[in-house]
Amino acid sequence: MARVSQEHLDARRRQILDGAAVCFARNGFHATSMQDVLKEVDLSAGAVYRYFSGKEELIAAIVGEVLGSVREAFEDAARQSPPPPPDELVVPVLGRTLAARENLTVDGRPAFPRLVIQVWTETLRNEELAALLREGYASVRAIWSRIVEAYQDAGMMRPDVAPDHVARTMIAAVMGFLVQHSLFGPIPVEVLRDGLRALMSMSDERTASHGSQLG
Amino acid sequence: MARVSQEHLDARRRQILDGAAVCFARNGFHATSMQDVLKEVDLSAGAVYRYFSGKEELIAAIVGEVLGSVREAFEDAARQSPPPPPDELVVPVLGRTLAARENLTVDGRPAFPRLVIQVWTETLRNEELAALLREGYASVRAIWSRIVEAYQDAGMMRPDVAPDHVARTMIAAVMGFLVQHSLFGPIPVEVLRDGLRALMSMSDERTASHGSQLG
Repeated sequence: MARVSQEHLDARRRQILDGAAVCFARNGFHATSMQDVLKEVDLSAGAVYRYFSGKEELIAAIVGEVLGSVREAFEDAARQSPPPPPDELVVPVLGRTLAARENLTVDGRPAFPRLVIQVWTETLRNEELAALLREGYASVRAIWSRIVEAYQDAGMMRPDVAPDHVARTMIAAVMGFLVQHSLFGPIPVEVLRDGLRALMSMSDERTASHGSQLG
Repeated sequence: MARVSQEHLDARRRQILDGAAVCFARNGFHATSMQDVLKEVDLSAGAVYRYFSGKEELIAAIVGEVLGSVREAFEDAARQSPPPPPDELVVPVLGRTLAARENLTVDGRPAFPRLVIQVWTETLRNEELAALLREGYASVRAIWSRIVEAYQDAGMMRPDVAPDHVARTMIAAVMGFLVQHSLFGPIPVEVLRDGLRALMSMSDERTASHGSQLG
């Protein structure tokens, strides 16, 4: 019997995950069957079930992989002192995340942003997926808060704003970028970079002079 | 035969739109039938079809109403010289949009943010809805660009960034705020306000000193 190399196993696993991601991006998680996935990856049921027990495991692996790579990239940034400013930090992470999945397409358009909003919608009805996403969100939010604290400690940002609020605003900008990408067609990440830079160039003196309290 | 007042007609129309919005937020547009809507609003088919020919007209009316009120609020802001800074501009518009729909709930949680992401997902499969959303996006994007130009003219923002890029970044922040709202529970709009203020307090000198070109 032929020995199967680890490399071969990894490539096979990759092939299944990519095929499933395209199926989910195309029709959503709910409307995709394991038959659709088998057809997409052109493998037998036996070959696929050897790696994944079903749709739940597939989507968990896909979402976990994305969240893991995003978390890792932000953790690297958080270790720098001070961390790069938001425009220089978000854009490479987002750019790499998109580029790594460029080969996955639906109707000739990138599948990844489309997959993201399908996953969000499915989350409304799928408690396991919701738990997975909540966990990923909490950890990215915590890392971002540490980055914001470092900005504040380095005097790069006003210190009277709750770091968590900035964290959630940064996450919002990235999420909304992906929404526009999936609904209205690809956008260069430089759009978001420029937008953040322009915001950073505004003085908040006007706001501060209104005497409002932040915290 | 009793005369029916305009007020009564308007209230009935409102009742149907709100009931349909709750149904779409709960199960998505695709999985909702007109029967579900009739049951939700507790009216006869005759009463409902007098106002709307079907699901397509209902969703178009709901989306059109939201886009219309958002556009109007931003147009008001664009007429001021200079316009209020982003944190003071976005937050009241978003706050009013959410507050106006607070009475609509699904499982005791606000229906509106949930409706928004359901509409996005449906857009991937529904060309009419996609066209409606594209049009609304284009017009909000154009108004935001005018506001950004006014910031630049007033010396409130660096002039070397394409206004459209800032427009899309601001829209992204609001979209992503709604995503977090619907997936992870209600967020006060002050979170976004604080996040924008904190970004505005960052100097972009560091970025500028890297000699990068924007445009």
